[in-house]
Amino acid sequence: MGVGSLSIIVNALPSALCMSLIVQKYGGTSVATVAHLDNVARRIIATQAKGHDVVVVVSAMGHETDRLDDLARQVGITPETHREVDVLLSTGEQVTTALLSMVLANHGCRARSYTGGQIKILTDSAHTKARILDIECERLQADLDSGVVAVVAGFQGVDENGNITTMGRGGSDTTAVAMAAALEADECRIYTDVDGVYTADPRIVKNAQRLDSITYEEMLEMASLGSKVLQIRSVEFARKYNVNLRVLSSFEDGLGTLITDEDENMEAPLISGIAHNRDEAKLTIVGVPDMPGVASQILGPIADVNIEVDMIVQNMGLDNSTDFTFTVHRSDYDKALSVLQKTAKDIGAKGVSGDNTIVKISVVGVGMRSHAGIANTMFKALANENINIQMISTSEIKISVVVTEKHLELGVCTLHTTFGLDNEKVL
Amino acid sequence: MGVGSLSIIVNALPSALCMSLIVQKYGGTSVATVAHLDNVARRIIATQAKGHDVVVVVSAMGHETDRLDDLARQVGITPETHREVDVLLSTGEQVTTALLSMVLANHGCRARSYTGGQIKILTDSAHTKARILDIECERLQADLDSGVVAVVAGFQGVDENGNITTMGRGGSDTTAVAMAAALEADECRIYTDVDGVYTADPRIVKNAQRLDSITYEEMLEMASLGSKVLQIRSVEFARKYNVNLRVLSSFEDGLGTLITDEDENMEAPLISGIAHNRDEAKLTIVGVPDMPGVASQILGPIADVNIEVDMIVQNMGLDNSTDFTFTVHRSDYDKALSVLQKTAKDIGAKGVSGDNTIVKISVVGVGMRSHAGIANTMFKALANENINIQMISTSEIKISVVVTEKHLELGVCTLHTTFGLDNEKVL
Repeated sequence: MGVGSLSIIVNALPSALCMSLIVQKYGGTSVATVAHLDNVARRIIATQAKGHDVVVVVSAMGHETDRLDDLARQVGITPETHREVDVLLSTGEQVTTALLSMVLANHGCRARSYTGGQIKILTDSAHTKARILDIECERLQADLDSGVVAVVAGFQGVDENGNITTMGRGGSDTTAVAMAAALEADECRIYTDVDGVYTADPRIVKNAQRLDSITYEEMLEMASLGSKVLQIRSVEFARKYNVNLRVLSSFEDGLGTLITDEDENMEAPLISGIAHNRDEAKLTIVGVPDMPGVASQILGPIADVNIEVDMIVQNMGLDNSTDFTFTVHRSDYDKALSVLQKTAKDIGAKGVSGDNTIVKISVVGVGMRSHAGIANTMFKALANENINIQMISTSEIKISVVVTEKHLELGVCTLHTTFGLDNEKVL
Repeated sequence: MGVGSLSIIVNALPSALCMSLIVQKYGGTSVATVAHLDNVARRIIATQAKGHDVVVVVSAMGHETDRLDDLARQVGITPETHREVDVLLSTGEQVTTALLSMVLANHGCRARSYTGGQIKILTDSAHTKARILDIECERLQADLDSGVVAVVAGFQGVDENGNITTMGRGGSDTTAVAMAAALEADECRIYTDVDGVYTADPRIVKNAQRLDSITYEEMLEMASLGSKVLQIRSVEFARKYNVNLRVLSSFEDGLGTLITDEDENMEAPLISGIAHNRDEAKLTIVGVPDMPGVASQILGPIADVNIEVDMIVQNMGLDNSTDFTFTVHRSDYDKALSVLQKTAKDIGAKGVSGDNTIVKISVVGVGMRSHAGIANTMFKALANENINIQMISTSEIKISVVVTEKHLELGVCTLHTTFGLDNEKVL
């Protein structure tokens, strides 16, 4: 998948020659104020002027969701009030759809707003974290056929009884992808405040490069490792329904990064990027009597208090006892530690230790599947810089290591150089 | 209709003995903040505790509608964007329904919020000033049957194509009355920041009294004359569907004022109240050649620029020409004056004069129908105080006069005393 050839394909897509349907999604920073809406409207009109049909999905403006969430917290949120929290929060996106449709109309562009209920974005009934089941397309299709831009409220839907539901933070990305899938759109463009996906965090690696394209699998690994450009669920959705997903900036022009299926005909780059995550903490329980079921005895109580576990490593010791290490989100560290201390007593372990000053660094790339030796190259590069590896975890297209926090920048930069990601790519 | 006997009937209504359905409506000042919602919830729960079924209709909180309206104005409102203005404004009431339902739930009261679309408050498609055509009651009835309080967003509905509509300022009153009519409720209670309808404005007449009851007709005359307690349309609606409508305070206890049908069996008081209106201005076109169609020649151009005319008086002069006087809302005075000046030229009138320092004072009472001499009593009382009457207009149950602004207080107080409305009523 050569970068040069790919960008030609990308340039060909939005041309006036091939009429196509584009779903555009604008996030909270892109629609922060009424003034921002003008910019968004201009982008929509320009896309339409190129001969495309356009469906727009919007988030709530700026900090509106936070404001509504604060009102809910003042009243008090309980499981019994989740239905009403959804009714409350869904107004944020509705406001944006109305105002953007007005701005478009004032620019001479025919537009119509829709709530999740009006076009029937059917979800399950899991309030505050609902999942999309189906989208009725008749009304949208009628608008498209008559040249009207449909402006759809993201993040919300209705269940089969007409109750308003929401999909959790970042849900508007999923709405956009689902809409693109339902309408069989040619592309789903997620406009945000970054201009694409990078080979590493540009704040850490100065000569990180924007990727022209990346596979769904790689993006999933990048996203879950802290490159918080897109909601993970929307990428899963895009992969499932084979939606071409493009991340790009709403503030400057550019092609962004296309997230798409792996193309068998092109040679994949070995490594797409170096991801990192600062939000981790490590816990170890030592001298655990080794017997079947010990892992669930340790992790069961952690799951019971709703703490998510990321990496897990278990080593057998010499004395028939085992050391068991796992990582959690840093904000869960104190809670996890106290749960683990209790567990240690219950199962007769020797003790518990923890460290909330660790980070995770990962190399991600589909090329890994067919190339041996990536892990060794990675470990050697880190060793050359005297960086000690505390934990290792691997998947088909990713190798992650845990190192101490102070080695984050050095580790990421070293690996970025080692795998040829600096400046011009070397395959 | 003796005051004493009526209040007994009123006291009997909310007793625990007769299970009944009460629609309660809370306006913007009653739900201004999250703290206010606690007070409202307590009132709802107390009503339910007496054995009543309760449906609640709410307005937007405090100045929320103004905030949304300001956003719309920043973007620019045109007839083409009225559909979207409705989508925008309707979120205000939706927020209140969600928060109030949450507060109720946190007090242990089962409650469920509804948008106008969810329970299908069907309206025509006249965006920003829609009229209710029908309300589907199945869902509300199911809630009532299972002891759930339904909290309905006022002011909004949907047209037959599912587009969101709103009914104009004060529309929540109409929603409440329409809901009471559809559900055949025993009473529709409008909670506001005043504790009822008074015989005159208490800020002007110190010993004005709260009326225990008033007829629909009287209330319509009072409301249109400036006693701005209720939206006029809601009173018309209540009369049409014979809904018992009660205005009362959400901040203090009390029975408020019941607005209901005239009871033939009771003796009506002669005069129910003295209303006034400061928002008027008077325009006169003099020396109009008297011929058929002159009234429409004068008022046609006024109507064409959307100015509403209130009182109209025409006098024939001696020289076969006529003087034509009418009143408009004071904010329309300048525009009306310039239209009238053009008309005067067109039809060959002698000239135009105007006065935007006039007020209207009215005596209102259904007793007027069967009692002669009310007008004479009124004019004599004003003459005794040396108050000059500039215009007179009468209806079946109302006599209005226009006087100069500085005579407002004296005129209202004099008439209040003359018609025995001070302190204890004298019939």
